[in-house]
Amino acid sequence: MTDFAPQDTDFEARVRESFARQRVMATIGARLSRVAPGEVEIELDFREDLTQQHGYLHAGIVAAVVDSACGYAAMSLAPAGADVLSIEFKLNLLSPARGASFVARARVKRAGRNVTVCAGDLYALEGASEKVVATMLATMMTVKS
Amino acid sequence: MTDFAPQDTDFEARVRESFARQRVMATIGARLSRVAPGEVEIELDFREDLTQQHGYLHAGIVAAVVDSACGYAAMSLAPAGADVLSIEFKLNLLSPARGASFVARARVKRAGRNVTVCAGDLYALEGASEKVVATMLATMMTVKS
Amino acid sequence: MTDFAPQDTDFEARVRESFARQRVMATIGARLSRVAPGEVEIELDFREDLTQQHGYLHAGIVAAVVDSACGYAAMSLAPAGADVLSIEFKLNLLSPARGASFVARARVKRAGRNVTVCAGDLYALEGASEKVVATMLATMMTVKS
Amino acid sequence: MTDFAPQDTDFEARVRESFARQRVMATIGARLSRVAPGEVEIELDFREDLTQQHGYLHAGIVAAVVDSACGYAAMSLAPAGADVLSIEFKLNLLSPARGASFVARARVKRAGRNVTVCAGDLYALEGASEKVVATMLATMMTVKS
Repeated sequence: MTDFAPQDTDFEARVRESFARQRVMATIGARLSRVAPGEVEIELDFREDLTQQHGYLHAGIVAAVVDSACGYAAMSLAPAGADVLSIEFKLNLLSPARGASFVARARVKRAGRNVTVCAGDLYALEGASEKVVATMLATMMTVKS
Repeated sequence: MTDFAPQDTDFEARVRESFARQRVMATIGARLSRVAPGEVEIELDFREDLTQQHGYLHAGIVAAVVDSACGYAAMSLAPAGADVLSIEFKLNLLSPARGASFVARARVKRAGRNVTVCAGDLYALEGASEKVVATMLATMMTVKS
Repeated sequence: MTDFAPQDTDFEARVRESFARQRVMATIGARLSRVAPGEVEIELDFREDLTQQHGYLHAGIVAAVVDSACGYAAMSLAPAGADVLSIEFKLNLLSPARGASFVARARVKRAGRNVTVCAGDLYALEGASEKVVATMLATMMTVKS
Repeated sequence: MTDFAPQDTDFEARVRESFARQRVMATIGARLSRVAPGEVEIELDFREDLTQQHGYLHAGIVAAVVDSACGYAAMSLAPAGADVLSIEFKLNLLSPARGASFVARARVKRAGRNVTVCAGDLYALEGASEKVVATMLATMMTVKS
C-alpha cells in the first residue's frame, strides 16, 4: 500500500499498456514488475551488450530504467487519458552498476496537476543482497491528450 | 581547433580505444565521429527499437550518447593512463527526440585535476536542418589507474 | 541583440518591476544590469556577510542570483501578464566564488508555452579579468495570472 | 540514531565550528539545530527580506540552507581535519516556500572517500503541521586540508 490515491482506478492497465509501447524496454530486456499508486518497479538483468568500458551497466541504461520507473510512477497518479513526459532528470552514480540483475524503484515525491516530481533508485541484486548503485530526481509533465 | 591543450598528445587514440570497449555503444549503433581537445561528438541513427511510447528516442538513449560524449570530452584532457567516470549528470529534454539521425556534442566547461564539468547537447538532424532536442550538464571524475 | 523575439514589447519594464519586488535581491545587494529578449544579467558585489566558511560567496547566494537571472530571462519572452516560477535548477560550482564583484549571465535555451529551459553562469570580476565560477541549468514554468 | 558510524568522534564540534564560520547563515538567521552521524538539520525563520516577488522564501535562500545541511551531513562522516565542498546540487521547488519557519533536513545517501552524495528536503512549519516545499540531491567533495 502507498500513501497515494489514484485518480483513475484503471491506472495499472494504463501504465502497463504504455510501458509495452516503449520499444527500448524490450530491447534492453527491462520488465515492469510492480505498479502501485505513485510507485513503480522495473527489473533488468545484467547483459554484457549494455556495458561501459569497465564491464558495468552504462549510465545511459541506468538512466533509461530509472527514468521510465519515475515516469510511470507519475502516470499512475494521473487522470485517465493523460500522458506523462520527462521534462528533466538528474542521476547520481553512487557505485559501479555491477550485479546479476537490477531493480529500479521510483516513487512520487509531489504530484501536481501539471508537474510531478519523482525520486528513483537503482539497486544491484546479487544473491540475497541488494545495494543502491544510482539515484535520480526527476521532473515529469502531465499532458492531456 | 579548441581552447584546450591536451596533457597527452595521444588523447584521440586513448578515447577511441575506450569508446570501442563501451559495448552498449555498438548495441545502439552509436559512432564516435569527432575527438578534439575538450570536445567530442557521437552520432546515432534513429532506430525504432530505441524508442519510447510515442516513437521518439527514449530519454535513456539520449542520456547514453550525451553522457559518453561528455565523459570522452573530459578524458581528452586527462593525463595518459587516467580513466574518467561519471559522477552525475542532469539532462533536460527540450523537444521530442525525432529525426533521421542525431549528434551529441559535448565540451568541457572546466577541467580540474579530479573533477571536470562538461556540457553536452543532442541535435536531431533531418535533411539540412538540425535542432537541439536535449541538453546535459555533467560532472566527471578523473581516476588514475 | 539576441536571437529571440519577445511576445510583449514591454518586457523590460515587466522584468524590472518583478525584480524590484524580490526583496532578497536588495538584501544581498544584487542589481539587474541588463534585460534583453531571452538574456538577463544580474550584478552583485562581494560582501563578507554572504560568505561560506572559507570567505567565498556561499553557493546559496550564487544560486540566488543565477536563478533570478534565469527566471527573468524566461520572463522576458513570456506574454504580458504571465509570471515565471522556478521548477528546478542544477548548479555546478566550478571554482571558489572569490572576487571583488560578480555577474550572473543567463539565457534561454528553449522557450516553450509552459516550460522554458535556461542556462546561466556566474563570473567573478577582478580588475579587467573575469572567470566563470559556477554554471546552472534551470527549468522555469510560465504561469498565466 | 542513524545508520552511519563517524570516523571522528568529535564530528559535532567540528561541524558546529565550521557552520559558525559561514557568515551568510547568521545573515539570514539560520541555526544549526541537529548534528548526527550523516544527518543534519538547519532551521530558519521566515523573514520578508528573504523573499521573491510573491512574498515566499527565494529559491536561493532555500538552496543556501539545504546545501549547507547537505554539506555538514557529509562533513559529519569525514575524517578529522577534512573539509567538505559542494561540487554541485539540484534543487526541485515543490510548493511555494511559505510558512512561519522552515527546517532543512539532510542525510548522506552514500559516503565515499572523495565524493559523498546527500539528499535534503526543506519543510515549512505552520503550527503543528509541516509540509515539504523543496528537495535537493547534492554531490560533495571531501578535501584533506
